Amino acid sequence: MNIKMLVYILGKVLLIEGVLMVLPIVCGLIYGESQVVIYAALAALYVAIGFLVSFKKPKNMTIFIKDGCVATALSWIVLSVCGCIPFMLTKEIPSFTDAVFETASGFTTTGASILTNVEALSHTSLMWRSLTHWIGGMGVLVFLLAVVPMAGGSNMNLMRAESPGPTVGKIVPRVRSTAKMLYYIYIALTVLEVLVLFFCGMPLFDSICSAFGTAGTGGFGIRNDSFASYAPHIHWIVAVFMIMFGANFNFYYLLTTRQPGKAFKMSEVKVYLGIIAFVTAIICFSVYGMYGSFEESLRQSLFQVATAITTTGFATTDFDLWPSIAKFLLVTVMFIGACAGSTGGGIKVSRFQIMFKTIKREIESYIHPKTVRKVHLDGKTIDGDVVHSVALYFFIYLLIFVGSMFIVAFEGHDLVTIFTSVTATLNNIGPGLSMVGPTQNYSFFSNISKWVFIFDMIAGRLELMPIIVFLTPAAYKGIIKKPKKVQNG
Amino acid sequence: MNIKMLVYILGKVLLIEGVLMVLPIVCGLIYGESQVVIYAALAALYVAIGFLVSFKKPKNMTIFIKDGCVATALSWIVLSVCGCIPFMLTKEIPSFTDAVFETASGFTTTGASILTNVEALSHTSLMWRSLTHWIGGMGVLVFLLAVVPMAGGSNMNLMRAESPGPTVGKIVPRVRSTAKMLYYIYIALTVLEVLVLFFCGMPLFDSICSAFGTAGTGGFGIRNDSFASYAPHIHWIVAVFMIMFGANFNFYYLLTTRQPGKAFKMSEVKVYLGIIAFVTAIICFSVYGMYGSFEESLRQSLFQVATAITTTGFATTDFDLWPSIAKFLLVTVMFIGACAGSTGGGIKVSRFQIMFKTIKREIESYIHPKTVRKVHLDGKTIDGDVVHSVALYFFIYLLIFVGSMFIVAFEGHDLVTIFTSVTATLNNIGPGLSMVGPTQNYSFFSNISKWVFIFDMIAGRLELMPIIVFLTPAAYKGIIKKPKKVQNG
Repeated sequence: MNIKMLVYILGKVLLIEGVLMVLPIVCGLIYGESQVVIYAALAALYVAIGFLVSFKKPKNMTIFIKDGCVATALSWIVLSVCGCIPFMLTKEIPSFTDAVFETASGFTTTGASILTNVEALSHTSLMWRSLTHWIGGMGVLVFLLAVVPMAGGSNMNLMRAESPGPTVGKIVPRVRSTAKMLYYIYIALTVLEVLVLFFCGMPLFDSICSAFGTAGTGGFGIRNDSFASYAPHIHWIVAVFMIMFGANFNFYYLLTTRQPGKAFKMSEVKVYLGIIAFVTAIICFSVYGMYGSFEESLRQSLFQVATAITTTGFATTDFDLWPSIAKFLLVTVMFIGACAGSTGGGIKVSRFQIMFKTIKREIESYIHPKTVRKVHLDGKTIDGDVVHSVALYFFIYLLIFVGSMFIVAFEGHDLVTIFTSVTATLNNIGPGLSMVGPTQNYSFFSNISKWVFIFDMIAGRLELMPIIVFLTPAAYKGIIKKPKKVQNG
Repeated sequence: MNIKMLVYILGKVLLIEGVLMVLPIVCGLIYGESQVVIYAALAALYVAIGFLVSFKKPKNMTIFIKDGCVATALSWIVLSVCGCIPFMLTKEIPSFTDAVFETASGFTTTGASILTNVEALSHTSLMWRSLTHWIGGMGVLVFLLAVVPMAGGSNMNLMRAESPGPTVGKIVPRVRSTAKMLYYIYIALTVLEVLVLFFCGMPLFDSICSAFGTAGTGGFGIRNDSFASYAPHIHWIVAVFMIMFGANFNFYYLLTTRQPGKAFKMSEVKVYLGIIAFVTAIICFSVYGMYGSFEESLRQSLFQVATAITTTGFATTDFDLWPSIAKFLLVTVMFIGACAGSTGGGIKVSRFQIMFKTIKREIESYIHPKTVRKVHLDGKTIDGDVVHSVALYFFIYLLIFVGSMFIVAFEGHDLVTIFTSVTATLNNIGPGLSMVGPTQNYSFFSNISKWVFIFDMIAGRLELMPIIVFLTPAAYKGIIKKPKKVQNG
């Protein structure tokens, strides 16, 4: 294992975290809040440590897939733990477990909260809390790759570990250019949303926080009722932006490089929009009696479907009171998740596409046993390896899901709470049903369950494998054995 | 498609069904019940039709995997539809949907019932109802293979379609001998249970019906409270027999052929027993406060775990009232299911073993990317094809599961009812939780939902693929195109 490189990457990550704290500091200065002092001190500390540790580039910058996994997992742990310190020092979230939960929930773009009164937080902390969503949405390592040049395959191993989806989002041949391109699109869309919200009557502070929550498909609201008390036209705008951030960013890349034909042929985006339309229609029909008008019923349906499938987690209504079919469909799209190569979580539309196509081929092989057929997606052949890795993803997903439920079930809450709390954290959504419904929060869980959820959130955000490899003792064999060899030699 | 062979197989199936009706007829004669007339008339009719249709062997007895799937699916539909007629004619279950539901639930060894008062049924019908479990447990086509000689690969294609588990239960080289061996073990164990129950004080009628329900891992009780009102020692006996029938029959074959060393090395049986012990211990601990003594608490736990993991579906207590962790574990083992090559349902222990080993290998491949590793089970290499087919099984399972929930959810029952009713039918268990709990039944569902459950029960019993191929229009292309070609030629 390349320890020097690991320390270098973690240093850079801490440095970035410190620099990004400038935004809440500026915000706190404008509002004249005392919390600014704590943020400023921590930012200085993080920048200093990060700079010292990553000042000198290691000679050997090569990292293998195993090191990539460990580096990614550790980066996210460093982000969450260092990011939670201001909440503790300002005494806004005094408990360590709660503070890590809230910060991990932010960075992993889950949006599950242990806060019973969000509006009691300072503007400084609210801004930092929403900013974690934005940083976590596209990923801090992708950002690192965009700004730091690295050796050949190494950056690929990092990007693969952090980017969502079964196939790597390698838009342009060079990884660094891809990372840059992703961030350009990400920043442009975020700025666009801030402007649209601001000019449609939302205060600037609210616009920025909401845009961060939408862009990262995070879900932290800055009001206790999430989005319910904002004007209806704000609901429409946020719903549309949530859907936009859940689409494969390749789509925007193709649009900006003037290849609209290719962009609109992307089957994942088409299926994704199709699912949204289909599910919204059924839910709209089933909840029609609960709302005053067709507009309201459609708006509430679309907003909730968008928030569930993109795994954002905002809410404009208490969907826990909806009829069973609506709740079932919301939970189903929570599992499906957004597109690969987006900021959204969940299992991802393309994994289901590969699954469907594999089933179809299997049926065909029963009917015409002698024909060899391959699975295709957007004209590209999906080989056995991809099918295999998608299957593995489902296996590991199932395992973590059942294991998490097992631990949480000891608390004795109802089965819907247990099931949807794990669903909502592992898929990085936020709210679930019953006791973790959109008007509730996660404060009542025991610390053990909260750590299970923290694990699930990070595992879900990193698409399982990096965190699994990170926790496998065999991954560190080399480190423990090395000194022995030196003694022998 | 080999239509002549298809008709031949279906004829034999009907013939067997008619012959098997002799048992309820004898039972009805002993009790002097008027329903006997209807059973006798139908039995005569089925035997006559079956005999006429399958009198002449087709010249070409070869069937391919596609035909095997269609033949299997059609056999089970014929069994269920023809088997339900006596219930309708005796007016004990007048509705066609309900009668098919009850009979399909019997043959598929599910044990879900639409009857609100089981004890109102005649002895004749109760015996027929329990007998369907026994027939369905080992499979009518396996029986057919045991008695009718067929061409080389053809019988394999039939057996593969009907036998449970990812690998075919080919105990001895010749399929016919395997089928015979399976039935010998099956009959011996059933007779053993009848004798043990009878000599432990159960009435003979009850002993036979209970043994049929246990052997097929079915679950129909002949009392309204299932097994609750039988004596405690009966609970222990039935629990042990349920566990025995859920073990891989290969285990008994190895024991009878004096290879105990090999038998006790079978990892699937070991894992299966390990899961039962582990889950029973936790549940026993969690429900200890609800029962008077350690014996009762252990007995109730073991019985309910045995009934859930073997997917039998008997009950001695209302486990819907148990704490969340106990309910969660029961639902979890319902999904795991029994061993491959047993009469039990569910996903099967060995599928999970293959899944775990594949995950383990994947993690190793991240840590040592250059080493090629293979998945082994009991010393045999599990190749990519088996892993692939297990993955496909999970995919199709997921699809049917979510699709079924989607339709049932329109009825508006609570999510636990919707979730566990699909779980209980697709895994061939019977009772679930909430409105389909052990003290409830399926009578309140709409006809649409009942047909979904009938589909799920048959799909679950046949391990998904045969029923999927049967429903694929492309499977019948040859039949529809053929006349066209004749016209052209």
